Amino acid sequence: MKKIDLNCDMGESFGAWTMGDDGAIMPYVTSANIACGFHAGDAHTMRRTMQLALQQGVKPGAHPGLDDIRGFGRRPFALTPIEAYDLVVVQIGALAAVARAQGGRLYHVKAHGALYNMSANHAELAAAIAQAVLDVDPQLTLFALAGSRQVDIARGLGLNVMQEVFADRSYQDDGTLTPRSQPGALIEDVETSVAQALTMVREGYVIAQSGKKVEIQADTLCLHGDGAHALEFARQIHAVFAKEGLLMAH
Amino acid sequence: MKKIDLNCDMGESFGAWTMGDDGAIMPYVTSANIACGFHAGDAHTMRRTMQLALQQGVKPGAHPGLDDIRGFGRRPFALTPIEAYDLVVVQIGALAAVARAQGGRLYHVKAHGALYNMSANHAELAAAIAQAVLDVDPQLTLFALAGSRQVDIARGLGLNVMQEVFADRSYQDDGTLTPRSQPGALIEDVETSVAQALTMVREGYVIAQSGKKVEIQADTLCLHGDGAHALEFARQIHAVFAKEGLLMAH
Amino acid sequence: MKKIDLNCDMGESFGAWTMGDDGAIMPYVTSANIACGFHAGDAHTMRRTMQLALQQGVKPGAHPGLDDIRGFGRRPFALTPIEAYDLVVVQIGALAAVARAQGGRLYHVKAHGALYNMSANHAELAAAIAQAVLDVDPQLTLFALAGSRQVDIARGLGLNVMQEVFADRSYQDDGTLTPRSQPGALIEDVETSVAQALTMVREGYVIAQSGKKVEIQADTLCLHGDGAHALEFARQIHAVFAKEGLLMAH
Amino acid sequence: MKKIDLNCDMGESFGAWTMGDDGAIMPYVTSANIACGFHAGDAHTMRRTMQLALQQGVKPGAHPGLDDIRGFGRRPFALTPIEAYDLVVVQIGALAAVARAQGGRLYHVKAHGALYNMSANHAELAAAIAQAVLDVDPQLTLFALAGSRQVDIARGLGLNVMQEVFADRSYQDDGTLTPRSQPGALIEDVETSVAQALTMVREGYVIAQSGKKVEIQADTLCLHGDGAHALEFARQIHAVFAKEGLLMAH
Repeated sequence: MKKIDLNCDMGESFGAWTMGDDGAIMPYVTSANIACGFHAGDAHTMRRTMQLALQQGVKPGAHPGLDDIRGFGRRPFALTPIEAYDLVVVQIGALAAVARAQGGRLYHVKAHGALYNMSANHAELAAAIAQAVLDVDPQLTLFALAGSRQVDIARGLGLNVMQEVFADRSYQDDGTLTPRSQPGALIEDVETSVAQALTMVREGYVIAQSGKKVEIQADTLCLHGDGAHALEFARQIHAVFAKEGLLMAH
Repeated sequence: MKKIDLNCDMGESFGAWTMGDDGAIMPYVTSANIACGFHAGDAHTMRRTMQLALQQGVKPGAHPGLDDIRGFGRRPFALTPIEAYDLVVVQIGALAAVARAQGGRLYHVKAHGALYNMSANHAELAAAIAQAVLDVDPQLTLFALAGSRQVDIARGLGLNVMQEVFADRSYQDDGTLTPRSQPGALIEDVETSVAQALTMVREGYVIAQSGKKVEIQADTLCLHGDGAHALEFARQIHAVFAKEGLLMAH
Repeated sequence: MKKIDLNCDMGESFGAWTMGDDGAIMPYVTSANIACGFHAGDAHTMRRTMQLALQQGVKPGAHPGLDDIRGFGRRPFALTPIEAYDLVVVQIGALAAVARAQGGRLYHVKAHGALYNMSANHAELAAAIAQAVLDVDPQLTLFALAGSRQVDIARGLGLNVMQEVFADRSYQDDGTLTPRSQPGALIEDVETSVAQALTMVREGYVIAQSGKKVEIQADTLCLHGDGAHALEFARQIHAVFAKEGLLMAH
Repeated sequence: MKKIDLNCDMGESFGAWTMGDDGAIMPYVTSANIACGFHAGDAHTMRRTMQLALQQGVKPGAHPGLDDIRGFGRRPFALTPIEAYDLVVVQIGALAAVARAQGGRLYHVKAHGALYNMSANHAELAAAIAQAVLDVDPQLTLFALAGSRQVDIARGLGLNVMQEVFADRSYQDDGTLTPRSQPGALIEDVETSVAQALTMVREGYVIAQSGKKVEIQADTLCLHGDGAHALEFARQIHAVFAKEGLLMAH
């Protein structure tokens, strides 16, 4: 039976500043995307978050972002493929060393923020990111936006890919996410979110805004670590999937 | 016969700023200490410098420093051992990934600037740095100030150590470097420098400022990449050691 | 009758990270020390905090710190007087422009963290900071640790100074604060704190740890914006001083 | 008779890194655009560059850029008008304080790199930047791309504007610069450059790539401080304009 991985961005505190409550949300995820010090996180936070993940049997992965701490890696800017490649190599490497020093290893890589969005459908950036992962450690799995060109490009290069879906975002007829600037982009009702997630995992489709059934491959589901209801939402999603026996083993 | 390694700090350009002329000095060294993006360097420079070292058969090593780009890692500040540990782990990891992605590997680690100086004789920092190297990759060699506590502490933990000496610095009776604030700390005459280097390598001692012979173990000699005469000095040191058959194989 | 100013550090959020709850504590202070983007804060936060202070009739002042965002300006490092001078000039200038653009002006300057501590009794740093304030705007008042050399040095240069005291720190026989590393450095009981503050303001002395009465000049009292009880403590201090008619007019 | 101002970007060194040779080029300019620590420069460099300009009677101005030291302010990213406003306010303020502390004052503001390009024809960004200048000091002059919307928008708000032209860039029929990605964008021949500059200043037009005469208002001419021939080019431009009596008085 098809199972789902639950991932969440973690380790986003920086210096004297705290972000999120990783300890509270860790029990409800199966994969942790750990910031690598470029858009968020620092050497200390990386180790603390790694320890937390390893203690709880959560699979740690690298969450590389743009080198823009002031913009939290969310400001898209023109980036050449080789620049993206370099950024991803060093960030995976830094976190892999933290994992090794703590007796663990990395399982996956997920690009952050603007880097994730830009690479989803930009063929050259997508290839650069996939190549960076392959060149550092071909055993790693790339988490990529379900249905995006990143999925096919990375697989074409021989990389293992898991397709990522969102419970709290609505979809368009072509399988893309409704842009945040449009009405109905966010699904704020928890029950609707959970239902969408279950349908994606069990049935392999999502009901687009238009009402149309759209095929989607759901390998990993993104939970959010911040926001008012993040923790409650994570708890419910985790409970429902666990009860249904749909959770990927840690 | 005793041989010597010649090391030099490299990869210290940052963003739009260039520092040093790595391409010019690379032919005269056998080990390159490559900055890892914390006190100098960035993801792009790390790859370019790694490629240059690998092409020329120079052994690449990590040159981790304090997280202080504005101070170039030269401003000492109170650092706990665990902070030093974390900084060294992520920096080695980042550069190790660059090496792997380019088909190479790291050979050594040398702390930079204030981190090097602080750890030389501070037992807890010395142990933290050695442990970080061991935890990431026990095959790596630590370059440490000849005669410092760092040497014994790292060896006590089982780490391979090479002792570093300076041709252009004078020494005290206890084998320590004359502080830069004191007269005669720097040896500006190239011939005197070369002679001191040769004596350290072949005879195993150095003539201290007082005239006393002081035993010293010279495994690797530090060349400087900047300064008016850096390149000429590197060329001469390399030529003399090569002629004498004292150069460590690449 | 002697009146007291209540000051608090503000505007310490940075990029995507929030610190403190400036809106909640603003009603209980009379002076706001606003971070200037070097150890904390950014251009956006500076404007928002300035607007908040001006709206509530709180006097805004500059809170310059070391250029060390990763260490929150709390890591002391060797700093030359001219470096301190330069850091203070640009930070006051940046915030003064924000004040002017919002229709206000700055009233005071208080150094942050390690810069405050280092300058308190280091004559050359103290003089450099005072000179920086004078050179940018001689109308500004410097907040300095009560009884420190900074007070006399700044006054000697012709700068207006207000002496800063702490309600929640114990004092030594020589009028200095008990170092945080020693037992009893922090006064955790709110009533004891309030009593100490009242005595300092009304009577002009503080009871040192030894029980000795020590003269102290209390012009401004430092409230803390973070910590579990910060808000409750600020509220009580403000209420007591307001009731006693000891609060400086906004 | 129409006179021309010669401006050049200055103060772009950062920490341990040097950029350009401000001392060499200063004699050939009449206005210095000084970096303010966001895309380049730091507190120390700002003061040193200000002193150099004041000593040589060159008019200092602020050169605010994006908060992106790693990209040297050249990577365009989505910026809201209020973000641009905030960035410009604090950067002018910081440099104005440096000028005041050195006994001088600022004369102009010129946006740097991506901020300059983005604001040239984006009405809301152009207005935000003009308003920031006005709110900090309405006496300041804005240097804006000749013929751009920034010129009209800033004037509409009541700001004094000087139109900037380039000697070493070719122009299109609509008065815009030929994009660097197109052939013939750069004029590499010095004589052709000088001739174009003279025609713009004396005749008020430029010959576009197509051969068409295009009206242009040339108030200030941008010299470049780096590049192989920058210094020689600056020297020639300055000599020709001085000989013709077309140089604006310092």
